[in-house]
Amino acid sequence: MRIGIDIGGTKIIGGIVERKGKVEITHRLPTGGKEGYRRVRERAIELINTILRESGVSRNEIKRIGIAAAGQIDKNSGTIIFSPNLGWHNAPLKKDMEKIFDAEVVIENDVNAATFGEWKFGLKERSRNVIGVFVGTGIGGGIIIDGRIYRGFSNVGGEIGHMIVNPHGYRCNCGNSGCFEAYCGGSYIVDRVRKSIYEGYRGKIWDLVEGNVDKLHTGHIEEAYLLGDTLCKSIWGETIEYMGAGLASLVNLFNPEIIVMGGGVINGSKQLIEDACAVMKKRAMKASLKDVRVERARYGDNAAIMGVAFIDV
Amino acid sequence: MRIGIDIGGTKIIGGIVERKGKVEITHRLPTGGKEGYRRVRERAIELINTILRESGVSRNEIKRIGIAAAGQIDKNSGTIIFSPNLGWHNAPLKKDMEKIFDAEVVIENDVNAATFGEWKFGLKERSRNVIGVFVGTGIGGGIIIDGRIYRGFSNVGGEIGHMIVNPHGYRCNCGNSGCFEAYCGGSYIVDRVRKSIYEGYRGKIWDLVEGNVDKLHTGHIEEAYLLGDTLCKSIWGETIEYMGAGLASLVNLFNPEIIVMGGGVINGSKQLIEDACAVMKKRAMKASLKDVRVERARYGDNAAIMGVAFIDV
Repeated sequence: MRIGIDIGGTKIIGGIVERKGKVEITHRLPTGGKEGYRRVRERAIELINTILRESGVSRNEIKRIGIAAAGQIDKNSGTIIFSPNLGWHNAPLKKDMEKIFDAEVVIENDVNAATFGEWKFGLKERSRNVIGVFVGTGIGGGIIIDGRIYRGFSNVGGEIGHMIVNPHGYRCNCGNSGCFEAYCGGSYIVDRVRKSIYEGYRGKIWDLVEGNVDKLHTGHIEEAYLLGDTLCKSIWGETIEYMGAGLASLVNLFNPEIIVMGGGVINGSKQLIEDACAVMKKRAMKASLKDVRVERARYGDNAAIMGVAFIDV
Repeated sequence: MRIGIDIGGTKIIGGIVERKGKVEITHRLPTGGKEGYRRVRERAIELINTILRESGVSRNEIKRIGIAAAGQIDKNSGTIIFSPNLGWHNAPLKKDMEKIFDAEVVIENDVNAATFGEWKFGLKERSRNVIGVFVGTGIGGGIIIDGRIYRGFSNVGGEIGHMIVNPHGYRCNCGNSGCFEAYCGGSYIVDRVRKSIYEGYRGKIWDLVEGNVDKLHTGHIEEAYLLGDTLCKSIWGETIEYMGAGLASLVNLFNPEIIVMGGGVINGSKQLIEDACAVMKKRAMKASLKDVRVERARYGDNAAIMGVAFIDV
């Protein structure tokens, strides 16, 4: 029996993952990341115990506890080297969990886990070369080559969000400028629109959010773009152009069979995938382009849980 | 006994490749690409026969004939699908050579072959994750993951020169705009400097080439940059900035252990690698950066011959 947990910036979610990927007895708790590593770890243990209690499964029936979290992870020791979302440095999560549970504990980067989940339970029969692009506040990426997650030399590869798409472009939270994420990550896009509104811009976007700038999200921005709002035509138009260029770069570099796209910005958009693909088709090289399909992720929040429960160690 | 051949835009070179990578009895002929596929193929056969004659090796002692060429290659059939340099479409080189020689014939993209050659005979003991960046008239790339060339789904991956580094940037020969190659490929850089000279620019660069714009190459441009020539400070400065940003993208995406750089622009430069690395270090993510080394290729023109003689089929 396998349990998958996803420790996110705002919530911890988990459940039992069946052999065919079905997630059962799902639970969630607020992360409370500000309380520090120890309290969050205790909350994850609490979540697992709740799942066990409800399922009637005993501890020694657990084959694996897989834990997905944002950040750089040392695969061998299962230590979270650095997680900006959670504020953790060198958190020995695998070691700590193994003291509590007599099961294999696997710690994995959340985007790698989600890409693997989407692949194993949705795309595997059709392809062994898949790239996951998850567009939320930032952009995370997962690369599957020949059925395995590509990690790179020191396990920190696959940072698709930090391809440089314009060296003189927007500042990125990583400290660099012009990263893919700085152009197409949700929080960056929303910040640009908010800034213009604070500076006095009033247009269709203002009406859409009824003057409540705090509730603004990328769904509104796309809607205003489609309605012809001047500001959003410029900002969302740029998002589409850079998203398409980023996809074209991935196609030229990796020659993948499938690019699977998920995350809040994609889920909240009507036609971002379609619009970005139109740009990608104009930009990518013909020989790579003819075999690639861009698809929407299908498992949402469950993908990481499903993936980490089954990912290769 | 293995023979390696490299069919380039201007010359065909070839030789016998010993087990440890030493290339012996090297010969070269002009490609004469304009005369078409059949004549070039005959010239390659002539070259092989010359090598055999001089070495005293008989035809049935040849274990492999490896042929490297620029372009997209169908690995299974050994057909060159498209080679812009040679002007070939669907050239059945493997099939044609197997009619003449009773040996295994392997056709490989020249940059993949060169990357593999540099790796197998120079870097293998130290790393199994290597990226080759060859900067000549354009930019070619080779990606070695776990000791094998990464090809992608339809064998056309690894197009490092066609990462988009600025969607609104310079036109690229591939039809796209803003490719890495359009910023850092030798012919593009030279064209930009030439254009300004034709438009009347006179500065240190003009003195360096003694007014003979035809002989201008990137070595002159770097030299003028280092001497403070205004035009070259701008154009070569941009080359350094984009080269550094391109390397940073590769580091963030692939987390490689070694990046090996070669090609005419690198060979003809004094400190492009060092200058670009300084930019890369400012831009790439710390976790990936700490393990990467950027090295100069050591085998020059022989790398592709060495690689194609031994590359995995």
